[in-house]
Amino acid sequence: MSESNEASARAAGPLATRTSGTVRVVGSGLLGASIGHALTARGVDVVLVDASPSQLRLAIDYGAGRAERPDDTPSLIVVAVPPDVTADVVQRELALYPDAVVTDVASVKLEPLRTLRERGVDLRHYIGSHPMAGRERGGAISARADIFVGRPWVVCRDGETSAHDLSLVEGLALDLGATLIEMTPEEHDESVALMSHVPQLVASLLAGRFVEAPDGSLRLAGQGVRDTTRIAASAPELWVQILGANAAPVVEVLDRLAADLAGVADALRDPDVPGARRAVADTIRRGNEGVERLPGKHGQNRRFDTFVVMVDDTSGQLGRLFGELGDLDVNVEDLRLEHSPGAPFGLAEISVVPDAVRRAVDGLQQRGWRIASTTHD
Amino acid sequence: MSESNEASARAAGPLATRTSGTVRVVGSGLLGASIGHALTARGVDVVLVDASPSQLRLAIDYGAGRAERPDDTPSLIVVAVPPDVTADVVQRELALYPDAVVTDVASVKLEPLRTLRERGVDLRHYIGSHPMAGRERGGAISARADIFVGRPWVVCRDGETSAHDLSLVEGLALDLGATLIEMTPEEHDESVALMSHVPQLVASLLAGRFVEAPDGSLRLAGQGVRDTTRIAASAPELWVQILGANAAPVVEVLDRLAADLAGVADALRDPDVPGARRAVADTIRRGNEGVERLPGKHGQNRRFDTFVVMVDDTSGQLGRLFGELGDLDVNVEDLRLEHSPGAPFGLAEISVVPDAVRRAVDGLQQRGWRIASTTHD
Repeated sequence: MSESNEASARAAGPLATRTSGTVRVVGSGLLGASIGHALTARGVDVVLVDASPSQLRLAIDYGAGRAERPDDTPSLIVVAVPPDVTADVVQRELALYPDAVVTDVASVKLEPLRTLRERGVDLRHYIGSHPMAGRERGGAISARADIFVGRPWVVCRDGETSAHDLSLVEGLALDLGATLIEMTPEEHDESVALMSHVPQLVASLLAGRFVEAPDGSLRLAGQGVRDTTRIAASAPELWVQILGANAAPVVEVLDRLAADLAGVADALRDPDVPGARRAVADTIRRGNEGVERLPGKHGQNRRFDTFVVMVDDTSGQLGRLFGELGDLDVNVEDLRLEHSPGAPFGLAEISVVPDAVRRAVDGLQQRGWRIASTTHD
Repeated sequence: MSESNEASARAAGPLATRTSGTVRVVGSGLLGASIGHALTARGVDVVLVDASPSQLRLAIDYGAGRAERPDDTPSLIVVAVPPDVTADVVQRELALYPDAVVTDVASVKLEPLRTLRERGVDLRHYIGSHPMAGRERGGAISARADIFVGRPWVVCRDGETSAHDLSLVEGLALDLGATLIEMTPEEHDESVALMSHVPQLVASLLAGRFVEAPDGSLRLAGQGVRDTTRIAASAPELWVQILGANAAPVVEVLDRLAADLAGVADALRDPDVPGARRAVADTIRRGNEGVERLPGKHGQNRRFDTFVVMVDDTSGQLGRLFGELGDLDVNVEDLRLEHSPGAPFGLAEISVVPDAVRRAVDGLQQRGWRIASTTHD
């Protein structure tokens, strides 16, 4: 189905969907309720289940699905519960509905699978998956049908997985607008250790160093340290479970990071040792190389030029700015709004394709905007 | 002078300024040329000097100041050269112009001072300073008069500093729109180690771990890891100098961080040891506490609610969005634009005061915007 057909189906009523029959969603937190909303919007019959009656009531009231009935015969079951009870719930659901396909959305994939295998559970109809979506804080009240759109959704099939079962789980991910990525559970867990779990710990450890810092030091904080530690605001409860369930891959990355850190600390401690200065330069250079490998906007490593516009801190100013950029036929690729402590205006850092930067800056200046700075990489 | 007087002075011609006479700026890179632009715009006579004739020519052509003349008698000299030649240049300038006040803008303060003291240089007219502004990449071509506006500017006076000399340096910082912070060189260097130099190294070390990661792992990168490693893109040359010149305070923070990191790695390695789970939770919790201490927008620790709007990837859409937020009388406190790989639209994460979130979300939905998610802290 093409994009435009999709759009007209959307406008006409219930959406054409790969998912059919009844989908049973176990767990009505942010992920479970969001899946419920998205499927309900597509006309799919969604049964919601939750250990907490009040949480369940809330999710149902918000339109994420209906309560279960004794005669329900789900074709697909989505287990959306915290990591440390995922294996138990998957086992129970497989036993309750032996004809259904069961998937889960936990952010670790190997530990639940290992537990299920150790217990001798028949796993022919189980396929682990992990949508890279959601927020650490949430619950049913924060659920939205669109949180999966454009996000990677990892599916961990194995040799026993039938094409039919796989199509149900992949169809779910595609219906929710996600991008499919197939990985083994080992690949998944190592990937999220490096791309999510260790960055979380690094941000937390760095921010933890600020607890005892003098107030004066904190006043020097700029955008760099703020970005580096932003995710340190995540909630502890969930992260203790995630990190505990993915301990081995996380520890492996942490140990390598600790060795790298010790290396650069030693080089700085004793700058007269041959190669010390070079070791420091190599640390920064490897960082350049690594960050370049992160997929950028549109999944490409496109580079943009940026400029900074001073924006009065009143409502409507950003509207005027972006309206005028539209008039100049400049598409904003990325932006970041920063307020200087104590200043009555903000700095809007705007990224555009290199071809557009001159047109944008000149055009805005002609219209009276103050450009604080430009950079060309 | 009140804000409105300042604005009318700005409109009428050369700005009223605390800085008078001739200011000699040594080094016409990003910081030096930006200072030149800002002072020239205020009607101050700026002499530019640079070891590179072509760099100097460029800065002068761009309007950052004029070439020196034999009869120049600067009252204030600003040394804006790389950290490893700062002491040499300060010494030379103090000798050349014994009646002038000399300041520098290097991002480390103790090492140049120590070097000057060891050489027995008369430092009565030297005051080290450090504007927390600029970009790691630059040169005269990126210079802008406004890069200091609203940024902290650290001034390191000592017991010998006369009120007159101090007023010249502080007047410069204030004329450039910066916020003054007084610190000892030791306080400054420890503060920037924690708030700037170690975050840089941490981002570089983490991003360095991506160099050998499989392509598949990189596809799972989300906004969290991108923020955590953004500054890893900084240029190595300058950072080798900065880190080398501030090695002792940086190593002290790195060693503590290494101990914290080893602690959490050990807790994850052996989760059955009593207190292991709690050690992991404490790491995340201390991170929460630390990041809360960073000064937020307007210098306060205000908390905002956020919501995410799906925005078509065409020019004019952001203009429409912010125009309509203005119509709804909603002031955008912060925003972040993210594009999902492969998706034909972006996600605009918008922060507003808690009171405004319902009005903004409802109003936008009524106008046909798709809200992807909301969070309330």
